[in-house]
Order: sequence, then C-alpha cells, then structure tokens
Amino acid sequence: MSTLASRFDTNPILRPSEVKPSRPDMKIECLLNPGAFRYQNRIGLLLRVAERPVQEDGWVSVPIVDPTSEGGLRIFRCRADDPKLDFSDARVFTYDGKQYLTTLSHLRLAWSTDGRHFVADDKPTLTGQNALQSFGLEDSRVAFIDGRYYLTYTEVSEAGVGVGMTSTADWMQFHHHGMIIPPHNKDCALFEERIDGHYYALHRPSGVGLGGNFIWTARSPDLLHWGDHRCIARTRRNAWDSGRVGAGASPIKTSAGWLAIYHGADDKPRYSLGLLLLDLKDPTKVIARSTKPIMEPEAAYELTGFFGNVVFTNGHVIDGDTVTVYYGASDEVICGATLSIQTLLATLA
Amino acid sequence: MSTLASRFDTNPILRPSEVKPSRPDMKIECLLNPGAFRYQNRIGLLLRVAERPVQEDGWVSVPIVDPTSEGGLRIFRCRADDPKLDFSDARVFTYDGKQYLTTLSHLRLAWSTDGRHFVADDKPTLTGQNALQSFGLEDSRVAFIDGRYYLTYTEVSEAGVGVGMTSTADWMQFHHHGMIIPPHNKDCALFEERIDGHYYALHRPSGVGLGGNFIWTARSPDLLHWGDHRCIARTRRNAWDSGRVGAGASPIKTSAGWLAIYHGADDKPRYSLGLLLLDLKDPTKVIARSTKPIMEPEAAYELTGFFGNVVFTNGHVIDGDTVTVYYGASDEVICGATLSIQTLLATLA
Repeated sequence: MSTLASRFDTNPILRPSEVKPSRPDMKIECLLNPGAFRYQNRIGLLLRVAERPVQEDGWVSVPIVDPTSEGGLRIFRCRADDPKLDFSDARVFTYDGKQYLTTLSHLRLAWSTDGRHFVADDKPTLTGQNALQSFGLEDSRVAFIDGRYYLTYTEVSEAGVGVGMTSTADWMQFHHHGMIIPPHNKDCALFEERIDGHYYALHRPSGVGLGGNFIWTARSPDLLHWGDHRCIARTRRNAWDSGRVGAGASPIKTSAGWLAIYHGADDKPRYSLGLLLLDLKDPTKVIARSTKPIMEPEAAYELTGFFGNVVFTNGHVIDGDTVTVYYGASDEVICGATLSIQTLLATLA
Repeated sequence: MSTLASRFDTNPILRPSEVKPSRPDMKIECLLNPGAFRYQNRIGLLLRVAERPVQEDGWVSVPIVDPTSEGGLRIFRCRADDPKLDFSDARVFTYDGKQYLTTLSHLRLAWSTDGRHFVADDKPTLTGQNALQSFGLEDSRVAFIDGRYYLTYTEVSEAGVGVGMTSTADWMQFHHHGMIIPPHNKDCALFEERIDGHYYALHRPSGVGLGGNFIWTARSPDLLHWGDHRCIARTRRNAWDSGRVGAGASPIKTSAGWLAIYHGADDKPRYSLGLLLLDLKDPTKVIARSTKPIMEPEAAYELTGFFGNVVFTNGHVIDGDTVTVYYGASDEVICGATLSIQTLLATLA
C-alpha cells in the first residue's frame, strides 16, 4: 500500500449500521463524503447520509422532499413489474420518463474528541427543504471564514444539480443562502481567507457536449455572488484522472502555495486523490499538479462496497504538518488517514 | 400565417453574402441571432457571424482562436479521409477524440437609421481573445443599464460553454468582465434596472442527467457576481417547448409585469417564440406563460436554411406599444418583425 497516507487502523470509523435512520420507515444505505471542522475542542464531521424507504416485496419506493407532506417527505411507490419503470441504473430510477434518485441524502453531524472515534447525532442536521433540494443534499464542504462556518453542498432536484450554501456560527442556528452556483455543478470548496480583497472558490461545472468535468475557480465580494469563472484543471487522457476531477475540502495555505487535495476518476470509474498547488497571491494560477495519485483505493473497504473502488474526500483538519483526511470509501463507509503536508509538497517538486 | 407578428416585407434584412468575411481565407456561412439597441438616433444590431475557412478539395479545416498565432487565429486542417476524423454532426468536428466547431463565430455591429435597412461594419467588433473563447463568441444580448451597454454572450471553448460579459458606453471602447456564469450556460438576459436594489438576470443552465434546458433567474449586487439561482421555467412535455427553453433579450417592463420573450424548441428541434410574464417586484415569480407560440417558423426563410425551422431572438427595441423583434431565421439570415405589447399581454390573460 502507498506510504504517503497512514490510514486509521480503526477504519472504517463510521458505518451505516451505526447511525440512526431519520424515520422508522427509512433505512440508511450509505454514509458518504463528510465535511470536517473543529469546534469547541471537538472535531465535527458533517456526514452525507443516504437513505431509502424500507423496501416491500414486489414494490419499489423512493423518497422525495415535499414540504406539503407530513414530515416534509413523500414516498413515491410503484409495482416492481410496472412497465413504466426503468431501473437500469442503480442510482437513478426512471418512471414514466421522469427521473428520481433511489436514495435521498441529508447532512448529519458526528462529533469526536480525539478525531478517531465519532458519534453521529440521532437526527439529521440539514435536510432538503425547497424545490431545488427535492432529491436531497450531498457532499458538504465546511469552511471557517471570519468566525463563521460556511457549508457548500450539492443541491439535487429534477431542476438540476447545483451548489447551495448555508452558514452557522454555533451549529445550532443555520442561515440558508440559496443556490450560489447554478447547474450542473458540484465539489465547491471555499478558500478560508480573502486573497487581494476577494473570496475565492474551487468548483466543478460539467459540460454538455463541449467541456467536461473540470476544476474551475470563481471570485466573490461576499461569498454569496460569484463571477470571473476560470478553468484551472482539466481531466488528462489515459491518466488516473481522465474521467473527472473535482476539489476536496478548502485548500491548505502553505508557504509554497495553496495546496488543494482533489479527487480524480478514470473511465471505470476508479476514484483516487491528487494535489494541485496554486499561487498564493493568484489561486487561478496552477504551480504544480500530481502526476500520480497521493492515495488510491487499496484497502478492502475502499475496493468493495455500495460502489467500489472509491476514495473521495471533501473534509480534513490540519494540525501543524499533519493533515487528517476524512473520506468516503466505496460510497458506503467513513474513513480517516493522516498525511504530512511537507511530504505532499515534496511529491510536487 | 400567425397575425401576432408582422414580419418585415424586406426580410431577410441581412444575409451572409452582404457581410465581409473577417479574413480573405474565410467564408461567412451564417448570420445569427443579433442583440439590438439604440445609440445616437440609430439602431444597432450586434450580429453573430459564423465563418469557416474556405474549404479545399480533399481537406477539411476549422478555425480556432489562438493568441499566439498571426492574426489571433489558427486553422486546424486534416485530410477529409483521415480515419481519426468523425464528421457525423455538421456543427461539431471530432478529430482523434477532440472536439472542434465547424464554424467560428464573432460579434459584429450593423447600423440602421430606420430599423429596417442595416449595413454591417467591415470588421469584427468582438472576437474570441482567450482560452475560454477559443471556439468563439455567440448570441449576444445587449442591455442598457445606468448609461452603459452590457453585452452578455456565449463564450465557447473546449473548457465548456458559459456566459461572458463585456460593457461599453460608446461602442468604441470595450471592457471585458470575464465569464460571469459558468458552464454549461447560455441565453443570459439582464434586466435593465435594479429591482429592490438588486440586478437580475435570466439564464439557461443545461443539466447532465438530472435537470434540463430550463430558464433560471440570478441576482447580483454589481452585474459581475451572481447568486441566488432559481429555476422559473422548465420545458413542457408534448408541447412546442418540450426540448429546451431560453430567454431572449432583456425583459420588457409593463404595468402587468416583466414581459420576457423566450425561445422554445420541441424535440425535432423546431424553434418558436413564447412569453413569460414575471412579477414586477419579484421577477422570480411567474405570473403567466404562453400556452401557444407567439411566433413560429412559417415564412420560407424560416423553414429552410443552414438549420431550418428556426426563429430565434435575443434582440429587440421598444417604441411605445411596439416591440420590433430582430431574429435569426434558419440559423442563416437576419430578419425583423413588429408586435404589439398590449396584444401580447392579452394572449396571456
């Protein structure tokens, strides 16, 4: 196994069976891709919890956010042999030409005092609430900026897939800022300080025809409104990141530049992690990029699961030279690993 | 023929043969979808001019913006029988797995004193200049805000298709504001005044999987940075706008609401025009929407051409109750028509 990343010997640190479903008629299928942060001497993870209704024989059912239904959730249900049903993709469910997701994701806090043992809250922290979130919230980054936490996550609905933002100072009261980057977009990581007076973000539009799943930067005066979009990292042919690339958590400030851990997938897709080093004064300039992954699916729990061959991170915490990366393995369980920032920088030299 | 729109009896008012190519080795294939505005007692159109290199027997060649080449343009050329060439779509050209456009578009001014007879400038007004514009500029809207013209157009490159913005006060000096809305996005129309202190735009993201070609709103403090994206109009099944919808020029302020002319295409695709009426104080609220088109391809020049069955507008001027719509017909020629705003509003009652 690669020696750059020291995986926790307690991996996986959280499994679906260790978290309570949001309702008795729901079952947690996967825990995915947590945001990570420090708060009051604890480390918090903001998990993505993917649930589906407990299935009955002969029927299939999927959950949809619906503010007009009891509990804000409606279950769409049809006979498994209904000719209008197309179930050819396990993640998506097509009925009478209309698409649904098979699982509904919400965001849930889990807390730890040592960064290794986490206990998840019993209830969801953030759930889909409006028409742009009817298929849920996914893969939240957590950035700490000017004394406030900014959560950027994927909002999913039949209108499209874009980046929503919510902020909080105390993890009790939340303020929703709407969709800050329109479809099709994911993987939005905020820089945790202003650069030359501007806020910056990494984000990942997807092309239709021209373009692809590339990493872009954007600039903002206020974190709410974004412009000056630029493409800084494309996929690379015949490489481990040939199919798609997307930012991880907030870039890490080092004397050499902003160090951004990103995920890349090949055409299989097999998801690995790599690095971008961005200019300290102008993060739209790429100084260096990993030729080889810094971490790839190798452990048993990374090779098989709900969707195997995946290591995917959008959360980390820093302690001196050590970055502790929290990551989703095989789209099913939560894991951790530590890496040395200086050693990572050395791989780019 | 439908009676809502009075087509100019001089249509088409501009044809490719009446405009000078940007270089002697280029040929204009199509004139498309102009922005329209008033300036110093004249009416200006900002045409989209689509050119390709004069083709030689046995070869195919496409133009690419390249600041390092002479004249800022590079011609990519290969044998017509090269096995790496895939020419199955007339608009796109795939060589060795890489996509190019068959034509390169720039934006060019044309001027008129009567709004009916236009003379195009001899040289391009705005051409692709950077990596996000390497496949050109398309379909510019022109909004007049606070004494300045704001041009929003599609920037095309292999990085993706997004919305760029340039402003000018005098049509001589231009200031480029970068890509204001990231891929995949087109059809961005600015509202020409602030509403409750905010600038607003209509825009058209395209979905990958979930979502579609729908009309969205966005809000901005400064026209440069955009947020609070909301989906306000989707395609409608089995209707004339089942395949895609997108905004035309700036919405027209009326006492009944903001009247937005939009294009819709069905699955063929056949492009027609319809209306959205938006709340004056909150343009994210749709008051009414056309059930039938207000204008559809009917005249000979709208039925056949480079790409037939298209009426597409992103430019108009207002004079009292009359809106003069300038439009692209069959992706080849420029036409005009007048419509009564009160009569249009009556179709929504």
